[in-house]
Amino acid sequence: LKRFNRIAIIGVGLIGGSLGLAIRKKGLAKEVVGVCRTKRSLQLAKKMKAIDRGTLSASHAVQGADLVILATPIRTISQLTRTLSDTFQPGAIITDVASTKADLVRAVEKFLPKHVTFVGSHPMAGREVGGVSYATPTLFEGHVCFMTPHKKTSQSAFKRLRQFWRMLGSKVTVVSPQRHDQLTASFSHLPHLVAALLVLHGEKIELSGTGFRDMTRIASSDPRLWQDVVESNQKEILKSLSRFQKRLNHMAKLLKKRKMQAIQHTLRKAKERRRRLVK
Amino acid sequence: LKRFNRIAIIGVGLIGGSLGLAIRKKGLAKEVVGVCRTKRSLQLAKKMKAIDRGTLSASHAVQGADLVILATPIRTISQLTRTLSDTFQPGAIITDVASTKADLVRAVEKFLPKHVTFVGSHPMAGREVGGVSYATPTLFEGHVCFMTPHKKTSQSAFKRLRQFWRMLGSKVTVVSPQRHDQLTASFSHLPHLVAALLVLHGEKIELSGTGFRDMTRIASSDPRLWQDVVESNQKEILKSLSRFQKRLNHMAKLLKKRKMQAIQHTLRKAKERRRRLVK
Repeated sequence: LKRFNRIAIIGVGLIGGSLGLAIRKKGLAKEVVGVCRTKRSLQLAKKMKAIDRGTLSASHAVQGADLVILATPIRTISQLTRTLSDTFQPGAIITDVASTKADLVRAVEKFLPKHVTFVGSHPMAGREVGGVSYATPTLFEGHVCFMTPHKKTSQSAFKRLRQFWRMLGSKVTVVSPQRHDQLTASFSHLPHLVAALLVLHGEKIELSGTGFRDMTRIASSDPRLWQDVVESNQKEILKSLSRFQKRLNHMAKLLKKRKMQAIQHTLRKAKERRRRLVK
Repeated sequence: LKRFNRIAIIGVGLIGGSLGLAIRKKGLAKEVVGVCRTKRSLQLAKKMKAIDRGTLSASHAVQGADLVILATPIRTISQLTRTLSDTFQPGAIITDVASTKADLVRAVEKFLPKHVTFVGSHPMAGREVGGVSYATPTLFEGHVCFMTPHKKTSQSAFKRLRQFWRMLGSKVTVVSPQRHDQLTASFSHLPHLVAALLVLHGEKIELSGTGFRDMTRIASSDPRLWQDVVESNQKEILKSLSRFQKRLNHMAKLLKKRKMQAIQHTLRKAKERRRRLVK
């Protein structure tokens, strides 16, 4: 990988901070500049050595940056792109780490100048906790990172960014923005809503076992961040939910009619299919 | 705790084996006799020191036992009780570790002689893997163990068994067999079905992140064991499922109408409620 001169990370939270740590550890840039919302988190990010230099001003940070990583909550990204559009260095690669892509790519492309190139990224690495204090340089290792190049993405920028993610230990998977949103609706966004509903559904959940605990861990995530995810992928999540409802309706029928063999068959298929998750 | 003379564990799998290890480690019995289905697992159980003595005959094992723990799959328990009914030592305490209780207690009581007493137990400790090779003496530590005394349970037997579970590190919770089945339907059995359906629902799940992995881990459990659980608690699971469907239907409406504030409110309530699970 050709080393970046300056990488600007806008939003040094769990993901942004882990990126900074990993970039610095692997020497992927001469300098990492971080943007935080508060002086306190800037200081923490610097103390943790997640960034070389910090600022509260995104415009300031992107000056001279040949890679800009937008690691803020989804809803702020398009506005941020608009604000920064005159400041990006010609030839800069712009990416993000947001959980949804189709709407985002459309919005970002509206504001981007022609002399930069955007390609969406979504590292499938996160936790139910947030903030730079939880950041770790190994966050991405062994995990999938989606990349969603679209027709305006330059091939050279895509290749360089792909190499960047690979250097961080990610398994890069390339899909279209639309397909990304379908997939993540089915195995991330819908399950997230289901986990929240299970927590509200369970009686006396303090008596439950580790299965329930593990199953609902993601329901402890930040509700505002997830509201954004749900809002920006509403259509696909709704489609996914409606398919899932059909599965539940079918299960209810099997249960009602005591079709135990069919239920066992379903459990067996699920166990079999889940082997795909075991590396 | 007054030490037991001989504890018979019928079924030395993950739970039975862990019981044996814990009982021997804590010295809760002079002798632990284990019953396995195969000579191979008997040998393994002895090699692991989960039992002092092993046999393939349950009748043989319960002779002289003042505590009998039925740790076989649910469907075999009532038949087993019937078979052993003439062999139990007078005054023996009989318990089980099954995941459902109401039907089981009824069935067991039909066959039990008057000179023994039964009280149901359900340690909320388990894993998605089975077999004695995964057994560990700490399996019960810090976990809830339900006890479901019913009108025929003698108070002294109940108290002695409660002390036994506490010695193993369990947090004993006393509920009626019926209430047990309602609670576990809501936070264990229904979520189990949901996890299986999520695995079948997700597209390209091999690309998913740790959230989905954790959420569906229980879908790797033994389908036959879970068929038994579902069958023996069919009514409560069906009621629970029907309530859960209403929650999903409501969520679908909120999504369709883009009621993002209401969705955030739901996520927030779930996050708040899940704090109960954090010790």
